[in-house]
Amino acid sequence: MKKLFLIFLFLSTLPVAAQTQEDSLFIARIFETALTQGRAYPDLKELCKNAGPRLSGSAEAAKAVELTYTKMQGYDFDTVYRMPVLVPRWERGYESQLMVSTSETKVTVRPLPICALGGTVAGSVEGEVIEVMGWNDLKDIPDEQVKDKIVFFNRPMDARMVYTFGAYGTCVDQRVMGAIWAASKGAKAVVVRSMNLRIDDFPHTGSMAYNDTIPKIPAVAVSTQGAEELSELLQKDPHLRVAYTISSQRHKDAMSYNVVGQITGQTFPNQYIAVGGHLDAWDMAEGAHDDGAGCIQSIEVLRILKTLEYAPRYSLRSVMWMNEENGLKGAREYARYCDSLGEKHVAGIEADRGAFAPRGFFIQGSSAQLEHIRKWLPLFEEYGIYVIKGGGAGADVGPLQQKDDSVVLIGFVPDSQRYFDFHHAATDTFENVNRRELELGAAALASLVYLMDKYGVE
Amino acid sequence: MKKLFLIFLFLSTLPVAAQTQEDSLFIARIFETALTQGRAYPDLKELCKNAGPRLSGSAEAAKAVELTYTKMQGYDFDTVYRMPVLVPRWERGYESQLMVSTSETKVTVRPLPICALGGTVAGSVEGEVIEVMGWNDLKDIPDEQVKDKIVFFNRPMDARMVYTFGAYGTCVDQRVMGAIWAASKGAKAVVVRSMNLRIDDFPHTGSMAYNDTIPKIPAVAVSTQGAEELSELLQKDPHLRVAYTISSQRHKDAMSYNVVGQITGQTFPNQYIAVGGHLDAWDMAEGAHDDGAGCIQSIEVLRILKTLEYAPRYSLRSVMWMNEENGLKGAREYARYCDSLGEKHVAGIEADRGAFAPRGFFIQGSSAQLEHIRKWLPLFEEYGIYVIKGGGAGADVGPLQQKDDSVVLIGFVPDSQRYFDFHHAATDTFENVNRRELELGAAALASLVYLMDKYGVE
Repeated sequence: MKKLFLIFLFLSTLPVAAQTQEDSLFIARIFETALTQGRAYPDLKELCKNAGPRLSGSAEAAKAVELTYTKMQGYDFDTVYRMPVLVPRWERGYESQLMVSTSETKVTVRPLPICALGGTVAGSVEGEVIEVMGWNDLKDIPDEQVKDKIVFFNRPMDARMVYTFGAYGTCVDQRVMGAIWAASKGAKAVVVRSMNLRIDDFPHTGSMAYNDTIPKIPAVAVSTQGAEELSELLQKDPHLRVAYTISSQRHKDAMSYNVVGQITGQTFPNQYIAVGGHLDAWDMAEGAHDDGAGCIQSIEVLRILKTLEYAPRYSLRSVMWMNEENGLKGAREYARYCDSLGEKHVAGIEADRGAFAPRGFFIQGSSAQLEHIRKWLPLFEEYGIYVIKGGGAGADVGPLQQKDDSVVLIGFVPDSQRYFDFHHAATDTFENVNRRELELGAAALASLVYLMDKYGVE
Repeated sequence: MKKLFLIFLFLSTLPVAAQTQEDSLFIARIFETALTQGRAYPDLKELCKNAGPRLSGSAEAAKAVELTYTKMQGYDFDTVYRMPVLVPRWERGYESQLMVSTSETKVTVRPLPICALGGTVAGSVEGEVIEVMGWNDLKDIPDEQVKDKIVFFNRPMDARMVYTFGAYGTCVDQRVMGAIWAASKGAKAVVVRSMNLRIDDFPHTGSMAYNDTIPKIPAVAVSTQGAEELSELLQKDPHLRVAYTISSQRHKDAMSYNVVGQITGQTFPNQYIAVGGHLDAWDMAEGAHDDGAGCIQSIEVLRILKTLEYAPRYSLRSVMWMNEENGLKGAREYARYCDSLGEKHVAGIEADRGAFAPRGFFIQGSSAQLEHIRKWLPLFEEYGIYVIKGGGAGADVGPLQQKDDSVVLIGFVPDSQRYFDFHHAATDTFENVNRRELELGAAALASLVYLMDKYGVE
């Protein structure tokens, strides 16, 4: 078997060997540029501190559009433009804590940290609580027991799932669907456990859905520590009462923009490799990991390739999509607009999983495309990237494939352990980003774009 | 070639297949236990907050000995004991900032953050500065230009090295040898740039050497930001003067202990698989990453295997070595003492690279041992561990192999990007440890110990 192994190794390295010398040297230069002359870290600081919380339609989002537009012009990309898009506008307003009072004394015994879920209606609610782990629990409870109650969805993320986005994916239905489910049973409000693996005091917001046929009831997230406490208190006093007030407002749609920077291709100028993140961010902090990092890394990809005087065959685009968090209007408009102009995307790469050390890429495309891209894996291994496999790329690139199923979509996958400590919470600040991890991510993305430009996508 | 590939895959998975079912299930239980019923995080908090900074010979080190001893007794390991070892004792005492004054006015223009290097003599020094990048620079400068100056070693860690311990290894000679080199040229003191890839305000201490034939001169580390500023100021005013005062003291050697916990083997009770970290820590913070994490993870390895009612063939030991930072007395005494009792170690596993997400293991042993252990890699990949290769295991396990070269040594390798943000600095606190990353490390170590116990080491 040893002999066979050696033969295999020899054969399998033949196609790689041709790439290896030139490509591994070029990729080393990409990483060196990112780590020693990188702009991602100061640029992310600027976005976080000068634009800050930037929910779609807000003044901060407008600042972020100007800031990234000006930034890419400053880097002298061939084309930089703003693509208009109408976006929903929701404002948090005032929100109370969750006031918990005993059934007997009606005196508040504990205030717990909450925040309004994104898109919720306003309201001031008070009542008994019914704790469930999800729709499976709730659907079997008779409506009269739910009526006029406040439904408390308390299913934790599954700590056993090593890839934490998996745990998020199997838990977030409570946040998205909770208000619809609860209202369909006659409840008057919802409290959802924050999507966070850590037990702490930070509530995490995020999008939620309503349904036109079912009453719209207020919905908030409680911190994981608060959820644990509320659950314990309910054990002792099942008829305890909670109250909260939120004053959030839905405004009329606002004009906003996707921001696009481009280095034009030499061979296929009207064919595009797009790499991007979303420029909007929840309003609790600075959107550093979600998704300032992805935006800035995408700009850094083009800046690095330009610095290295790489002349691409395809047109390379850095795209900052607007409104990923609560509408996806930017991504849909980008795909529609490009399609209307006859612009052909060969690949859409999304960076929206935080500024952590790169671990791999998820490929959403044909098996031929996956096989083709997987051949590049040996070039990434010395940078700690060992995974290229099939998987969902991300929300913002999705519409590109809906228009044209030959487009390969790729999701950048950094280490996922810390992401949900910060996601949609007040902790998502620039200070919680490590410079090297951010830079390594930008370099990994630039290396992928380089290989894709050079070798195509299948 | 595709056919050959399939044949190869088939053959290569045969030996793994036999292991796979039972082993992958057991390893899944190890990870589940670590992530859902883990004790590493609260135990590390206890060590950091109740024992705190615990340099060898200090009252805090004595507390750490008692705390880990009691902890392992509480977990009901078969044997728990303290192994006496005489250790050096050095105390930091008072230290000033680095006062920088212009050559003309002699007025202090800037105070910069410094700390005494571990083991330095005390002193109060003032004088002109000579900046060098290392011995290669310094050796060629005529002695009369160095005489009575303060030598400033300012070579940064190389940001291009993705594995940051590599960058540390090629830079730390300045800290260890700086005082000897400078004194050999007639200098009166040393300032060394902190071993840190990040530009910040935290000075990083660490061990340094003297030589009995060369005068002992004071040595301090300046923060990376301070080093950048001092270098800039020197460009403008090459004759600027700096001053600092440190009052550190070397006391006489103190009695301390290694702490050992054991689950006794069923088949080879007098043969040992030791997994451990060092219990002492630099005195600037809490030694959370360096190396509270390694100690607590080692205890957690035995606790998890015991919880899962695993009956080992070999005796499994969790070892907390004393005095890794400034003497290695504990590691040497452990190897000597075990050898004197005829205890045969089959493996020594060291966890001393921080509480970050696990990436792999470095094997220091024969190529047969490396090949044997590498076969287990497929069992680790779903947990993000893709690297098992030859490399240095660590300082504390080293003496075991010096006594018996059949012992395989293994270094646990977590992600290295953030380690030097904390290493030997005031930032190495419990708050900078992520719970899941710590727990995944403990699970990776427990899985390795399980496989090693079951399949031996070659």
